[in-house]
Amino acid sequence: MAYFDAASAAPLHPVARQALSASLDEGWADPARLYREGRRARMLLDAAREAAAEAVGCRPDELVFTSSGTGAVHSGIAGALAGRRRAGRHLIVSAVEHSSVLHSAEVFEAEGGTVTRAPVTRTGAVSVGSYADALRSDTALACLQSANHEVGTEQPVAEVAELCREAGVPLLVDAAQSLGWGAVECPWSLLTASAHKWGGPSGVGLLVVRKGVRFAPRGPVDERESGRAAGFENIPAIVAAAASLRAVRAQAAQEAVRVRELTARIRARVGALVPDVEVVGDPERRLPGIVTFSCLYVDGEALLHELDRAGFSVSSGSSCTSSTLTPSHVLRAMGVLSEGNVRVSLPVGAAEEDVERFLDVLPGAVAGVREKLGAPAPVADVRGDVLVVDALGKRCPIPVIELAKVIGDVPVGGSVRVLSDDEAARLDIPAWCEMRGQEYVGEEPADRGSAYVVRRTS
Amino acid sequence: MAYFDAASAAPLHPVARQALSASLDEGWADPARLYREGRRARMLLDAAREAAAEAVGCRPDELVFTSSGTGAVHSGIAGALAGRRRAGRHLIVSAVEHSSVLHSAEVFEAEGGTVTRAPVTRTGAVSVGSYADALRSDTALACLQSANHEVGTEQPVAEVAELCREAGVPLLVDAAQSLGWGAVECPWSLLTASAHKWGGPSGVGLLVVRKGVRFAPRGPVDERESGRAAGFENIPAIVAAAASLRAVRAQAAQEAVRVRELTARIRARVGALVPDVEVVGDPERRLPGIVTFSCLYVDGEALLHELDRAGFSVSSGSSCTSSTLTPSHVLRAMGVLSEGNVRVSLPVGAAEEDVERFLDVLPGAVAGVREKLGAPAPVADVRGDVLVVDALGKRCPIPVIELAKVIGDVPVGGSVRVLSDDEAARLDIPAWCEMRGQEYVGEEPADRGSAYVVRRTS
Repeated sequence: MAYFDAASAAPLHPVARQALSASLDEGWADPARLYREGRRARMLLDAAREAAAEAVGCRPDELVFTSSGTGAVHSGIAGALAGRRRAGRHLIVSAVEHSSVLHSAEVFEAEGGTVTRAPVTRTGAVSVGSYADALRSDTALACLQSANHEVGTEQPVAEVAELCREAGVPLLVDAAQSLGWGAVECPWSLLTASAHKWGGPSGVGLLVVRKGVRFAPRGPVDERESGRAAGFENIPAIVAAAASLRAVRAQAAQEAVRVRELTARIRARVGALVPDVEVVGDPERRLPGIVTFSCLYVDGEALLHELDRAGFSVSSGSSCTSSTLTPSHVLRAMGVLSEGNVRVSLPVGAAEEDVERFLDVLPGAVAGVREKLGAPAPVADVRGDVLVVDALGKRCPIPVIELAKVIGDVPVGGSVRVLSDDEAARLDIPAWCEMRGQEYVGEEPADRGSAYVVRRTS
Repeated sequence: MAYFDAASAAPLHPVARQALSASLDEGWADPARLYREGRRARMLLDAAREAAAEAVGCRPDELVFTSSGTGAVHSGIAGALAGRRRAGRHLIVSAVEHSSVLHSAEVFEAEGGTVTRAPVTRTGAVSVGSYADALRSDTALACLQSANHEVGTEQPVAEVAELCREAGVPLLVDAAQSLGWGAVECPWSLLTASAHKWGGPSGVGLLVVRKGVRFAPRGPVDERESGRAAGFENIPAIVAAAASLRAVRAQAAQEAVRVRELTARIRARVGALVPDVEVVGDPERRLPGIVTFSCLYVDGEALLHELDRAGFSVSSGSSCTSSTLTPSHVLRAMGVLSEGNVRVSLPVGAAEEDVERFLDVLPGAVAGVREKLGAPAPVADVRGDVLVVDALGKRCPIPVIELAKVIGDVPVGGSVRVLSDDEAARLDIPAWCEMRGQEYVGEEPADRGSAYVVRRTS
């Protein structure tokens, strides 16, 4: 058994478990009360806040505990936008932020705000220039993740923070994926994180608002956590979160080197082991533990099941997994192949032999899925001088498989039109062309779905 | 040591602790994932939802887990109001709801909604008639707690629910204080609760929305918990919450009788043991574990400290505690004495000998505080034929103490004017008159604060 999905949730760190158990007896009472059980709870809460603040690199009174990373992002963005209402109603986010950021942006738009979504390169990084271009006199807030949760690419937060500081615009950094590895060392204004990503318990997020940053909490008044996180404090979990953050940080420098070598091994070898694979994300500026690749002609959900049966837990941004019909917004923004997508995110302490075994198992798993898929012979006919493949009603990865099957029948210089109503085709047909060195001509409207036109160049 | 503040937070039930520890290893992964750790987490979550739904008396798919009772109330009210936007923009709440309900109502007002706050009698109960009067054709939602958190009075939820059903208006019942004792047996539409009130862990609330009730979640989209509670599920805590709810329910009928007898003992004897005490809340229709009383001429915070030193943890709705200058909104709405207020809320398993010891200790504690207060001789002068006491700048309970000191100097039929700028005086001077059989004439504006006029009748 090897759990390789730490970017979703890390297994509970032993220190977190110990701290949680130890504080269940002391931390259940209301820290706002004056009696001894309340005072004990308050002391635990204060100590946890100091420890977390030290790890973040902020003052204790700048940090509040929320009930999740998502909650921290929702409160942080809404509060910062409300606090800067007079400055304007413009928000900048990157196109590859966590869904909690993007959904907050949608709410802001629905309330009349304007949102600029900074694009990313094929490696998943924003350019500093795109933030420079997006900044306006009415920009209330900019958001940028420290590193991407799906492909591991680190963002240029230091440069963007400097830019924002010069423009007088607060920057919110979503550090959910990176805080366990280290503090975000730049002049950010707000920071959010989630304990269960670093091995802390579920139910604890961090929201940090630097002194001097205008902030107006939204929603019903609640006196707890400086009015920034409603509801009774979950002190045992907060204690466990702070203790485990210290513990993972103590090993972070050493563990980062070890884990980075393991993901580098996957990056380097997966292409040779498995035909038709695209490794995505920045090869250098990346988190230690994440490596992501996509496999042509593979149904992501089927591959996940194969790997699960072989004892590996990974996740996928493919459209055909987790009851969604659209590929992950991150892969879409990057413009990379989404079919057969696999994210491997190694937890702290991941074993080298498990990684080696994964590389042993993967080629067979991919081949098995490809064989089982054994797409039916494409229904193709020639209309005018263009070959038309009717893949309507067929889901990822079938349209791409059918394209691959017929391309040999097209004379060099000739074209093929793939009719598809699958959302993933919009991303994966151009990606296939890129990988295969064929020319992607473009998308045209059709009676149903779209027609994707490909010209054979070799 | 005796902890008598279960209405704030109950100590963790042994079953909750056991379930929490047991599920830390199985419940940390993302239940939305397809691999085995995710499936295990999902199974735990589903089982917990079924158990909680059975205890509530609803279908599992009607119940979501939130990160706190406050969160459940905030989401429930906002979602129900948004879902019924077309029906109208009028909300009914009782004047003695939990602050999370009242603060939600304030947000609704700020957004242009109208709120009717149903008054309560001196025992803290709403009248069914006041809800009947409040219902309008544009009423979107009514809220009523099952029982009051400060004085334990049970509300006529069944009658109000029937009324709302007839009017086609959904009723949200905040069952935070009562769910551990039993299900709310009436046709409610929405129900909220909080696990740490019944001995579950912190960090878990319940929000139940009956099928067919219009509900539009507010805030950023999040796919978890049917879109009604954002953020990663805290499954170990959820499992512990459900398990402990079953456990406390299994003992509830028997324990209710035992605990009710203990609080009845305090109700019956406190008046004889301590002079000048008013026991508040309904003597019959009340929660088993709560008894509340107020002591004339006593500073609530000082009394809490005395009791804490004697080993008793209780809370107070007096204005002079917990850094607030206004008495609890519940006591104000009831129009009862707030000074020297003490709420005793017994946890499940509270020991009879602790209650007896409390009754032994209380008279001395009250006497000690009264003696220490030893209010200075009032500054009184006669203006016209009215005695004037200048208590400006003095905090609860001094204005009432000064009134009591001078009343003997007033001839029967004569009046005394107490000048005070303390918020508690507005509540406590009339309450003193009621207790002492003197006539409260009324409040008049003064240069600073108000003048409270009392006529000596005996």
